[in-house]
Amino acid sequence: MEFNWIFISAPLAAALALLFSYIFYKQIIKYPEGTEKMKEIAEAVRIGAKAYLKRQYVIVAIFFILTSLLLVFLSFVLRVQSRWTAFAFLTGGFFSALSGYLGMMAATASSARTANAAKDSLNRALRVAFRAGSIMGLVVVGLGLIDISIWFSVLHYLVKYDLRLTTVTLLSFGMGASLQALFARVGGGIFTKAADVGADLVGKIEAGIPEDDPRNPAVIADNVGDNVGDVAGMGADLYESYTGSILSSAALGASAFYASKYTLNAVILPMVIAAIGMVASIIGIFLVKSREEATQKNLLNALNRGIYGASILILIATFFAIKLLLPGNIGIFGSVITGLIVGLIIGKSTEYYTSSSYNPTKYIASQSLTGPATTILAGLSTGMISTYIPVFAVATGIIVAFWAAGGFLTPILGLYGIGIAAVGMLSTLGITLATDAYGPVADNAGGNAQMSDLPPEVRKKTDALDALGNTTAATGKGFAIGSAALTALALLAAYIEEVRGGLLRLVGNGWQFSDIVKAAGTNNTENILQWLHHATIADFMRLFAVNLMNPKVIVGIFIGAMMTFLFSGLAIKAVGKAASQMVEEVRRQFKEIKGLLQGKAKPDYATCVKISTRGAQKAMILPATSAVLAPIITGLILGVSGVMGLLIGALGSGFIMAIFMANAGGAWDNAKKFIEEGNYGGKGSDPHKAGVVGDTVGDPLKDTAGPSLNILIKLMSMVSVVVAGLVVAYHLL
Amino acid sequence: MEFNWIFISAPLAAALALLFSYIFYKQIIKYPEGTEKMKEIAEAVRIGAKAYLKRQYVIVAIFFILTSLLLVFLSFVLRVQSRWTAFAFLTGGFFSALSGYLGMMAATASSARTANAAKDSLNRALRVAFRAGSIMGLVVVGLGLIDISIWFSVLHYLVKYDLRLTTVTLLSFGMGASLQALFARVGGGIFTKAADVGADLVGKIEAGIPEDDPRNPAVIADNVGDNVGDVAGMGADLYESYTGSILSSAALGASAFYASKYTLNAVILPMVIAAIGMVASIIGIFLVKSREEATQKNLLNALNRGIYGASILILIATFFAIKLLLPGNIGIFGSVITGLIVGLIIGKSTEYYTSSSYNPTKYIASQSLTGPATTILAGLSTGMISTYIPVFAVATGIIVAFWAAGGFLTPILGLYGIGIAAVGMLSTLGITLATDAYGPVADNAGGNAQMSDLPPEVRKKTDALDALGNTTAATGKGFAIGSAALTALALLAAYIEEVRGGLLRLVGNGWQFSDIVKAAGTNNTENILQWLHHATIADFMRLFAVNLMNPKVIVGIFIGAMMTFLFSGLAIKAVGKAASQMVEEVRRQFKEIKGLLQGKAKPDYATCVKISTRGAQKAMILPATSAVLAPIITGLILGVSGVMGLLIGALGSGFIMAIFMANAGGAWDNAKKFIEEGNYGGKGSDPHKAGVVGDTVGDPLKDTAGPSLNILIKLMSMVSVVVAGLVVAYHLL
Repeated sequence: MEFNWIFISAPLAAALALLFSYIFYKQIIKYPEGTEKMKEIAEAVRIGAKAYLKRQYVIVAIFFILTSLLLVFLSFVLRVQSRWTAFAFLTGGFFSALSGYLGMMAATASSARTANAAKDSLNRALRVAFRAGSIMGLVVVGLGLIDISIWFSVLHYLVKYDLRLTTVTLLSFGMGASLQALFARVGGGIFTKAADVGADLVGKIEAGIPEDDPRNPAVIADNVGDNVGDVAGMGADLYESYTGSILSSAALGASAFYASKYTLNAVILPMVIAAIGMVASIIGIFLVKSREEATQKNLLNALNRGIYGASILILIATFFAIKLLLPGNIGIFGSVITGLIVGLIIGKSTEYYTSSSYNPTKYIASQSLTGPATTILAGLSTGMISTYIPVFAVATGIIVAFWAAGGFLTPILGLYGIGIAAVGMLSTLGITLATDAYGPVADNAGGNAQMSDLPPEVRKKTDALDALGNTTAATGKGFAIGSAALTALALLAAYIEEVRGGLLRLVGNGWQFSDIVKAAGTNNTENILQWLHHATIADFMRLFAVNLMNPKVIVGIFIGAMMTFLFSGLAIKAVGKAASQMVEEVRRQFKEIKGLLQGKAKPDYATCVKISTRGAQKAMILPATSAVLAPIITGLILGVSGVMGLLIGALGSGFIMAIFMANAGGAWDNAKKFIEEGNYGGKGSDPHKAGVVGDTVGDPLKDTAGPSLNILIKLMSMVSVVVAGLVVAYHLL
Repeated sequence: MEFNWIFISAPLAAALALLFSYIFYKQIIKYPEGTEKMKEIAEAVRIGAKAYLKRQYVIVAIFFILTSLLLVFLSFVLRVQSRWTAFAFLTGGFFSALSGYLGMMAATASSARTANAAKDSLNRALRVAFRAGSIMGLVVVGLGLIDISIWFSVLHYLVKYDLRLTTVTLLSFGMGASLQALFARVGGGIFTKAADVGADLVGKIEAGIPEDDPRNPAVIADNVGDNVGDVAGMGADLYESYTGSILSSAALGASAFYASKYTLNAVILPMVIAAIGMVASIIGIFLVKSREEATQKNLLNALNRGIYGASILILIATFFAIKLLLPGNIGIFGSVITGLIVGLIIGKSTEYYTSSSYNPTKYIASQSLTGPATTILAGLSTGMISTYIPVFAVATGIIVAFWAAGGFLTPILGLYGIGIAAVGMLSTLGITLATDAYGPVADNAGGNAQMSDLPPEVRKKTDALDALGNTTAATGKGFAIGSAALTALALLAAYIEEVRGGLLRLVGNGWQFSDIVKAAGTNNTENILQWLHHATIADFMRLFAVNLMNPKVIVGIFIGAMMTFLFSGLAIKAVGKAASQMVEEVRRQFKEIKGLLQGKAKPDYATCVKISTRGAQKAMILPATSAVLAPIITGLILGVSGVMGLLIGALGSGFIMAIFMANAGGAWDNAKKFIEEGNYGGKGSDPHKAGVVGDTVGDPLKDTAGPSLNILIKLMSMVSVVVAGLVVAYHLL
């Protein structure tokens, strides 16, 4: 087996990232946690979050065991796929869970410390919170890349799979990561939003007490939710995105450069780009510092310096990496640039549509004057309209990345370019995730400050940090959504590879396919195998009639698009149900516990945590099951063309739904904050109540259903890839 | 030119339908209009509605003139399409407008008369309202089929176009009908919902006065809106659906049976099925009667007797028509049955998800206990979840209708079967539309009764009629949505036909296409023309690479799906904006006009009508323009494969969005009514207020954006068909 020393850069960079995250953790826990009260509250949140995660992991474990039994059956009984599938699948799930867990540990360790640091200065608070975020960022990318490196080495150099088989088998690792991420996002999302909605509706609107007030029985559940949803959920989510983009590009590289002397180079290029990004992110993290008496604008500049610094480093180094690894295909560098630009455009458009500095959010706030109904209508319509810029950006990006890599001459090269564009987009993840994840830390610090009766300036500082995080998070979101679309496309191409692999396996085992005999023009098995080895994507499109007039494709598209609605509906319904139970419980406590509102009695926090937990646990099962089963059942009935329709339908509709929900939710949130700043009557006015209704409706859209859709799209693709052998062998129509 | 006498049945049946609608009109105006007050109110609504339509038609006319100039340019300067295009387009628009207008005249003539008849008995009131609805139903189908018959005769027998060219040119007539329908639905929908929302939010919630109270300044605008939106808009909408299904099937028939002795028969079969449906509908209308002291259940049975009676007659006669016209393809009868069953299933699922007799709507009502936010979340999630039954029904229907017609052996036959399934589904339109359109008449009668201070029993009776209409309307909605999906698919196939036509024209004029030379394996023009004449759909799929790994197709799908969100967003925003102006105006009048709430002063109705009119007029332009331009621009940049992606993307996403919005809106509406019946605190309670917020949010979803999406999908398809010649000749990528 050929070996290229540059590959070593991947595990080395990953180890470096993990080392730095350990160092940062050591730095953080040296900071003092503040008063006894602060420690106590932080401890309560920490215990609640750990307890919830433990329960979630039990359900996930059961689900994983069942799924791997199915995979074992497919591998060893039906023998339609590699025998490493189940094992790779399990490790993917494990490491996805681990990165969420570690990120959450860092976050829960930092909230009280951030609040305590905010007593001194804004800059000090930023340092603690941002260090916590950096741990999350580096753990996610570090674990992701090291896992891929190890699995790649095992399959290619020990098991001696060829590169095509290696990279396609690796996608079952991706399936594990995606499935775990789906549970984390959906479960965490339901938990946090049920608590948030419940706390807000009764606390803010009915009782008129401030956010994070310790008299509110749902306040601990709310803070726990931030950690299990916004931190652990986001960590698992981005672990999935990150590994997904690398794995799908690697699979395409093996295929695009099949039987050329650059095959290995093309496979390791995405890993090398990721390694470059990791080192650049670490450097970028060190660029984030500012003077002691920093203003908010200084801090924003500091963060941006880190992100842009890392991006420039990556661009320069990536250019040389491509020149070194694929000297004949330097056009792929154009794909990388395209990916970064598309991510930036989506981020800017997210900012435009969701920040109260611009018209759309101001319009929503103004509609609150005529009540909640017009507020809701304004948010829904703004969210729907806001989809057009990201769609045009991604559409243009797809064409340009495809073209730059040479796709109009050799389509598979263009698809590889699209995959690499996604890798480029996510290469800065180490630092962009840091700027994203420190937001919830600041948020929790604010909660801690409020509950520990720290002076209001402390809360003001943590709020400033939180607001700052919202701006940088918009960019992060843009990259996550954009990369999901590109990765899903690359996975679609990888699916064809696995179909090829499946057919090779079956024909090798003596199966006969009349269509293939016809297409290959021979019924000699050796020749058919040869034909399969060299068949282009266009050949496969023809073989399975994957065209838009095939009713199986069309039906697949319908079902795929419907899946995104069904899935979102289930997630939102779960939040709504749990939230209304929470509302009733909080109302009950306010009514029945005497002296609670006067601060003379303590609320019963535990019952609220229980409601969120139960709501999340029950409601995770159905969406996850349907996401796994949809591609399998569609495949068994409609075959390859139906599956491809399904995936494209889910991608087209899911990408747009995800933007719609993220932007509508973000805009409602900021419209409410805009009112709270004193516009249209300010806090406590009728427009403010309408604004809170809007924010509440937006919560599950932007934090539960929306981000889960990105995972759903990729999970369905991964499942399709993994069971491709089954579908090729057995299908009805 | 060959001629088949059976074709004569089409214009004859159409003439019969128009004759009966005239007779019904004469019958209606013989009924007395009641007291002076009743006449006065009816007259005010009539004048308002006519005035609005006149203004709308001015904008539509300008838009049509501009569009036909473009078409003339394409026909006569670029010579990429038939020279009849512009003219056919204009007549389609004209007759679509005419059927809406006539239906509205019948409706406005009947409201006071229905109210007056309701003084006597429920049955008498039903007779008047249902006669008015029947006029609408028969006018729509009669005008539709007679126009098609005339145009078909002119193009085929006078201009001597062959059948393929005739049927494809007829689709430009369909484009006119669709474009006018889009204006009618969007404009009418904005008008009516702005008024409705404004009237409800201030009248019901803030001032606490009942619906249709004459003290409410928006009440006349609300009643005018019912007529221009729910009647004229719906008429134009269904005229478009009806003609669209017939025209697209005819085009597919010409192509599926090309160069066979059954070509003409295949083309006229959809018209003959429509003729059968028309006669059966007239018979069905006469089956709708009941005893004088009818209960609501009797009346529902009476209506169902009419619908089911007509359906059975159609099934029997259609079987013989197919046996007569296409004796070798009796399997197509299976497609017709499939179409009817799919329509019924969608109807039943609509009823399940939106009727307060079932759990989903009850659940939404229960969520009103915890306020407007959870009510909104419950409706959104219910609407999203509710999409799965219709999608599975249509998906199964597509496969079965395709298979029954022989599609798995000869794809084009299967597509023809899908088209015929849509025609079968809509063949009962004469009577289903009657049961649909009488609802708004009853609604307006109720308004008239309220405003004329008739005794409350009268209002009770008209409410009973209205509620009854809601149940039968669910079936009608199922047929409209289901047929839209099937028709859009048939149009996609028709698009390929027009691409073929465009290529034949261009190659005949000496153009060279290297891809076609390669595909045909010859560069002799005669042989290329021969190849084009006989090329199958699969050949065209390959020629233009209309497969799911072509980035142009994928980008098209993204843009198509996005169009449905953008379009819905614009429509909803327009309603929200106009509604909040309405709210402010009504609030102003309540405050500034002294004695208004005490019934001592008259409100200023005219200003409210003006707000709705202005809101509708301004907001119609952008959605309509984008719907026309999207396929043209996509085609000019991405070519044929991009356009097909666009259409499939819009279909997949639009179909599902339409169901989501229709069901969410319907469920909110009925949840509110359920609360008003005394549940969860009844009228005036906090849950009721939350229910009204839900209903208000649902209004533009179910009555403006939702139904417009069906038209949007088909309009984009029709535009694509019409400009196919341009796109084939000139495109960038």
